[in-house]
Amino acid sequence: MTTPPIHPGIEPLAFLLGTWAGEGSGSYPTIEPFPYRESISFTQNGKPFLAYQQRTMHATEHRPLHAETGYWRLAPDGTTVELVLAHPFGVVEVLSGPITSNAETHHRIELTSASLAGTPTAKEVRRTTRMITIADGVLTYDVAMEAVGVPLTHHLHAVLHCEGATNPSG
Amino acid sequence: MTTPPIHPGIEPLAFLLGTWAGEGSGSYPTIEPFPYRESISFTQNGKPFLAYQQRTMHATEHRPLHAETGYWRLAPDGTTVELVLAHPFGVVEVLSGPITSNAETHHRIELTSASLAGTPTAKEVRRTTRMITIADGVLTYDVAMEAVGVPLTHHLHAVLHCEGATNPSG
Repeated sequence: MTTPPIHPGIEPLAFLLGTWAGEGSGSYPTIEPFPYRESISFTQNGKPFLAYQQRTMHATEHRPLHAETGYWRLAPDGTTVELVLAHPFGVVEVLSGPITSNAETHHRIELTSASLAGTPTAKEVRRTTRMITIADGVLTYDVAMEAVGVPLTHHLHAVLHCEGATNPSG
Repeated sequence: MTTPPIHPGIEPLAFLLGTWAGEGSGSYPTIEPFPYRESISFTQNGKPFLAYQQRTMHATEHRPLHAETGYWRLAPDGTTVELVLAHPFGVVEVLSGPITSNAETHHRIELTSASLAGTPTAKEVRRTTRMITIADGVLTYDVAMEAVGVPLTHHLHAVLHCEGATNPSG
């Protein structure tokens, strides 16, 4: 089955499509700082969302660290991004926030968690924020997190490069 | 990187690993009944969860219908399954419930949604239940849903066959 064209309702997010990879660093008051490698993919199947998968591994020890998966949407206003996510530590998250695009290759997305829910055995996460900028094929992000009794604190920073605007059905 | 052995904490879910495919039928008071084809994959990477992806397409019109993605966990009691899911219509869901296994090839998992949250533009879903049985390489499930003002009503029934116990890292 060939991949259908992207749904017009999410055309403003089309620049995300493909696979992104790069390196980042993590820190938090409760853990040792750590370097990581990351791979992210965005795919679409003609419906009004992007399917999203993310994985990180420790940069030197090569063991898997975080993963997350979900869908990116765009509200009818054309400027509010909605992200629904599942985390393997037992948490689901709804984030939303504005996308601003000041030229074809410069985009900025600011997301804040609107809802978080966990299983009874999940790690306690109360709030996260994500600041993402994309310019000339480079995606940079910062994540802050309020969790396990710590107030909102910077947690992750990474720089990813687009490895290909492949667009398999998602 | 070779796939590490499954984490002992989720060994009771190992029978799910692999790709499952088959056919189902959907109905709900607000929509036309529809036949669908489905593909599900469960993978693991040595950490205590299974990564899960699901897609359905219309059985005769071949257009994509539902998709969902998330992670399956097992509580420390060894008998409570936890499922964290993201849905592309803008909803995240936490489900949990017991797994009972009366022989190596006969398993039953009963899940009920414990939390549901949606984006402002999401379809309103209030509760879902899933009854899954696995016997001799055949996975059968029924899903009921309370949504869009309709009380808990049967929605989906499908029968899937395991296409291979491949176990790529998830």
